[in-house]
Amino acid sequence: MLKFDSDLFLQAVGKEAIAEREKIEGIVDHISAKGFSNLFLIGAGGTIAMMYPYEYILKSNSTLEVHAEIAAEFMVMNHKHFSKDSVCIFASVSGTTKETVAAAQFCKERGAKTIGLVANPNTPLAEIVDHCITTGHEKHSFDTFFIHLYMLVFRFMHNNNEFPLYDKFAKEVAILPQALLSAMESFEQRAEAFAIKHKNTDYHMLVGAGSLWGNTYSYAMCILEEMQWIRSKSIHAAEFFHGTLELVEENTSVILLKGEDETRPLVDRVERFAEKMTKELFIIDTKEFALEGISEEMRAYFGISVNWAVLNRISVYLERERNHPLETRRYYRKMEY
Amino acid sequence: MLKFDSDLFLQAVGKEAIAEREKIEGIVDHISAKGFSNLFLIGAGGTIAMMYPYEYILKSNSTLEVHAEIAAEFMVMNHKHFSKDSVCIFASVSGTTKETVAAAQFCKERGAKTIGLVANPNTPLAEIVDHCITTGHEKHSFDTFFIHLYMLVFRFMHNNNEFPLYDKFAKEVAILPQALLSAMESFEQRAEAFAIKHKNTDYHMLVGAGSLWGNTYSYAMCILEEMQWIRSKSIHAAEFFHGTLELVEENTSVILLKGEDETRPLVDRVERFAEKMTKELFIIDTKEFALEGISEEMRAYFGISVNWAVLNRISVYLERERNHPLETRRYYRKMEY
Repeated sequence: MLKFDSDLFLQAVGKEAIAEREKIEGIVDHISAKGFSNLFLIGAGGTIAMMYPYEYILKSNSTLEVHAEIAAEFMVMNHKHFSKDSVCIFASVSGTTKETVAAAQFCKERGAKTIGLVANPNTPLAEIVDHCITTGHEKHSFDTFFIHLYMLVFRFMHNNNEFPLYDKFAKEVAILPQALLSAMESFEQRAEAFAIKHKNTDYHMLVGAGSLWGNTYSYAMCILEEMQWIRSKSIHAAEFFHGTLELVEENTSVILLKGEDETRPLVDRVERFAEKMTKELFIIDTKEFALEGISEEMRAYFGISVNWAVLNRISVYLERERNHPLETRRYYRKMEY
Repeated sequence: MLKFDSDLFLQAVGKEAIAEREKIEGIVDHISAKGFSNLFLIGAGGTIAMMYPYEYILKSNSTLEVHAEIAAEFMVMNHKHFSKDSVCIFASVSGTTKETVAAAQFCKERGAKTIGLVANPNTPLAEIVDHCITTGHEKHSFDTFFIHLYMLVFRFMHNNNEFPLYDKFAKEVAILPQALLSAMESFEQRAEAFAIKHKNTDYHMLVGAGSLWGNTYSYAMCILEEMQWIRSKSIHAAEFFHGTLELVEENTSVILLKGEDETRPLVDRVERFAEKMTKELFIIDTKEFALEGISEEMRAYFGISVNWAVLNRISVYLERERNHPLETRRYYRKMEY
């Protein structure tokens, strides 16, 4: 695969991420035993988008109270559900994202429990939080964050007597990275073909729902807009028919992210519309990937990781075809604002 | 003002909407007295967007549990916080929006309290809900919905001992329509100038936060995309710096919706960036409107109405300048999908 080190992936996401299981469960069990009032999932950009699937899964599987909040807004809004009894989970690849670091400091000072997901241990976010789980690698850190969030969030549900299958789930999390690698390999040709075909496309719609809404939002904003400077509209499948549909013409690029959770019919509906109205419909469906060893009942949850892994294979080909390095920025972290 | 009947506005939003105060308070007081577990605000497209400000206000002013959910997603997600003890508020101008009607039916059947905001009484949504508040006019129904939601939501907070100023607030709601009319009149020239200048602009960014995020999302999707077929990206001010900023060039249209709640500094930050990077920055700031009779402490709440009223003055000029009637649709309600 282009610009991809399978050994590194299996080491980082497969071995090292999975090796944190005992530590993560220890943190969660300790917090669950003491009791807490609610969960706050806090991030900015890609890292808040990454929390949305878990907020969705909690809402649809658990009575635990959960709030996913953008760090900078959380800091000013005086959120009335936040208290010293809250458990706050933060993520930042660099560990330096200003708003997220400030929010972690804020929550810690008020006595809430704080957990951080960070690439490197010696960074501001890692040092502020009560419990830090590090990926050890900036590369593949989102894939690793997803692994860690599976263990964190589902363990909280398990401890709340709402997810009896946790042990089975955690065992499948451990084999997920190999399944992701196979999924990426099988998607590689489609990723390349998409990038070649769309190297000059100046606008994409991305549509998803449920546990894939976060990826939909994130890929549009953090990859296509930030890393490729391509205009992109992310739109929830349930909202697509309330406005954005009117823009679809026969050459409009519509990227549909299909998963296997209960929101799939919402995306099916967009598909039925789009396949009639545009020639440029591109569907990424987690159902198409074998995911060896993953049981039927867990596939929907793992869609977050599967979708994100294959989606990002497109990025490296867009970079090559468009001759636009993913690291190039006009403004971000290049100036003060 | 172009295509605007001031008398009708003052009659519909000023008199008739305000006349529902006693009825609304009666509904809320009855529900509060019996007790309930949480509030669900449910809609689709413009009507879920309309709920977001009130979700934000509740989160930042009240310990009442609130969930704003897209109707079609709510129907499939098996929301674990919804129960017969929930209070569900729905809105649909036509009263026929399929997903919203289905969600109201679903909630009612499960024993939850249901309240509907609808233009006309003899419509499916109006007939399903326990309590229906009608606007009586399709025209200005969003302005009226906002008025009704002020009374509904703030009364719930009041009854929860979290908004002692309710009486003063409700009195100011009653004079708000006149203040809105004056705001629109004073904005008229700017609305026209914007539409003339941007009649051929094929892409706009809209940025807002806090209690104006719903309007930001809605104006992009339901007006610019749906009614004018112009590509538009709505982006939360706190998220703007995590991707979308990279698209800004000196001719990029950036529309900033500024309000007076505690998220204003987030929008200020985007302003500082955008005024350096583009010549096409257009700011709509609620602070610029006199709002006679409205006290300083209430202005932030009323920003929702003020912003929406003036923002929509742009629409009629875009329609004229672009020779594209606001009612023209390619697909919506013109075909099955």
